[in-house]
Amino acid sequence: MALNIKPLADRVLIEPMEAETKTASGIIIPDNAKEKPQKGNVVAVGTGTKDEPLTVKVGDTVLYGKYGGTELKLEGKDYLIMRESDILAIV
Amino acid sequence: MALNIKPLADRVLIEPMEAETKTASGIIIPDNAKEKPQKGNVVAVGTGTKDEPLTVKVGDTVLYGKYGGTELKLEGKDYLIMRESDILAIV
Amino acid sequence: MALNIKPLADRVLIEPMEAETKTASGIIIPDNAKEKPQKGNVVAVGTGTKDEPLTVKVGDTVLYGKYGGTELKLEGKDYLIMRESDILAIV
Amino acid sequence: MALNIKPLADRVLIEPMEAETKTASGIIIPDNAKEKPQKGNVVAVGTGTKDEPLTVKVGDTVLYGKYGGTELKLEGKDYLIMRESDILAIV
Amino acid sequence: MALNIKPLADRVLIEPMEAETKTASGIIIPDNAKEKPQKGNVVAVGTGTKDEPLTVKVGDTVLYGKYGGTELKLEGKDYLIMRESDILAIV
Amino acid sequence: MALNIKPLADRVLIEPMEAETKTASGIIIPDNAKEKPQKGNVVAVGTGTKDEPLTVKVGDTVLYGKYGGTELKLEGKDYLIMRESDILAIV
Amino acid sequence: MALNIKPLADRVLIEPMEAETKTASGIIIPDNAKEKPQKGNVVAVGTGTKDEPLTVKVGDTVLYGKYGGTELKLEGKDYLIMRESDILAIV
Repeated sequence: MALNIKPLADRVLIEPMEAETKTASGIIIPDNAKEKPQKGNVVAVGTGTKDEPLTVKVGDTVLYGKYGGTELKLEGKDYLIMRESDILAIV
Repeated sequence: MALNIKPLADRVLIEPMEAETKTASGIIIPDNAKEKPQKGNVVAVGTGTKDEPLTVKVGDTVLYGKYGGTELKLEGKDYLIMRESDILAIV
Repeated sequence: MALNIKPLADRVLIEPMEAETKTASGIIIPDNAKEKPQKGNVVAVGTGTKDEPLTVKVGDTVLYGKYGGTELKLEGKDYLIMRESDILAIV
Repeated sequence: MALNIKPLADRVLIEPMEAETKTASGIIIPDNAKEKPQKGNVVAVGTGTKDEPLTVKVGDTVLYGKYGGTELKLEGKDYLIMRESDILAIV
Repeated sequence: MALNIKPLADRVLIEPMEAETKTASGIIIPDNAKEKPQKGNVVAVGTGTKDEPLTVKVGDTVLYGKYGGTELKLEGKDYLIMRESDILAIV
Repeated sequence: MALNIKPLADRVLIEPMEAETKTASGIIIPDNAKEKPQKGNVVAVGTGTKDEPLTVKVGDTVLYGKYGGTELKLEGKDYLIMRESDILAIV
Repeated sequence: MALNIKPLADRVLIEPMEAETKTASGIIIPDNAKEKPQKGNVVAVGTGTKDEPLTVKVGDTVLYGKYGGTELKLEGKDYLIMRESDILAIV
């Protein structure tokens, strides 16, 4: 289901994934990050800034820093909205 | 009724919405934000800066950080005036 | 009466208005700002900077942050001189 | 008498004026600035920077912030040398 | 084995090497860095930024500051992801 | 005697002058600067930066802030090496 | 013997020289710097940045601030790796 939300500029909306011992692609996130996952799915992206378009796309799975972003609740689920520069990698 | 106010540069005047359990578009804002809403309607916008025009328009509903903006009382109602960069997303 | 003062660059000289319950245009400034008004009349403007001309003009009524500007006494009256970026909106 | 000093770049040499109750042009500086005047005469200017030429000229009377500049004693008199950006207005 | 991870922008994924007394190329890292190696192999690189492409390539052995980067566990092994500017030299 | 030293970029090598009560050009430096002179002779200059060539030349007498520069001993004498932006004026 | 190390960007690898009372070129470094020399030989340089090529070359003797750079041990000897902007002068 598409969410009715358009992040501004270089912001990205992320649905955090549950911390697991081993993911399908073999990524294991560190134990000390269990209580707050650092991996999530991109569900909406902004249009980028004048200087730099966005790299991540809707559907990407990304790794991000533990303290990045602002928490939002949309349709009863928790999301994070953060600047793309807070995203470390696409996995 | 149109307000007689022109925000300067990249500033945006926002009428905060009451915190609700579930909005028409299904957005639920987190419980810990109840006492100070993070969603509002754009009622006036500046002309942007030389480097970057504004993205939000009058009539947009926006999400913004809890600590963004300066409070103003206009025509007996509370408003917030903030820079567009403090706005997270259009919903 | 014209004041004999030329603000430098992006600075603006403002004559603060008395805090009132309701102004002609219906603007009410918040109670907690009563002791130090946040609205004033522009009485002199600089020539702007190389990058950005000024937007406000002499005669504009403006809203500004409570802590913006430097106080000056000219012809026996109190004024504030501040950078245009400290001005929030023209009303 | 011309002083033999060339301020560098955007610096300006100022001879502070005594704080007075009322000046010729009617400017009154606030009481709490009495012990350290905020008005002075420009006696030497730098050549400006690559980005921005200077606006003030030798002979201008200027208002400046209380804490701007470095004190110098030249020919037995006290002067201040400051960047033009520390000057608020020409009066 | 190639890791399924694409660092964003100017970020580089590094597999830290064990601290040794003397490496093949004769590099000895200081004793006080034994417990947390400062040398590693580049296993994935971003696409650089608009202003500056990346210099390091997959396969390079690099020296980096002790406090650079964010730790990640991928395929059961520890990695560091850091900006290229945190890398000191290629050895 | 020419010193065999080339300051880098926008750095300038200065031989501090003894604090005196009154100099040839009539400059008097403040009493509270006696123990650490603020006037000196330029004995070597860098080649400037890409953005800005240097203004001061070898042989200039300059005024500089009390806390500017790094102390060096060359040929048994004390010198200061500082960025040109730490120099206030040429006298 | 050439070291197998390539500093990144504007970084320079320096072999610190022993503090001496008087060097061949007559440079004497201050007593309070004896325990940590401020003079060294450039043994490897980066390729510079897009904005600014490097000025120092391999073989130059340089003066640098006491707290500049990161210590490295290569081939059993101590080196410093620092940005060129931390180098004060070539002697």
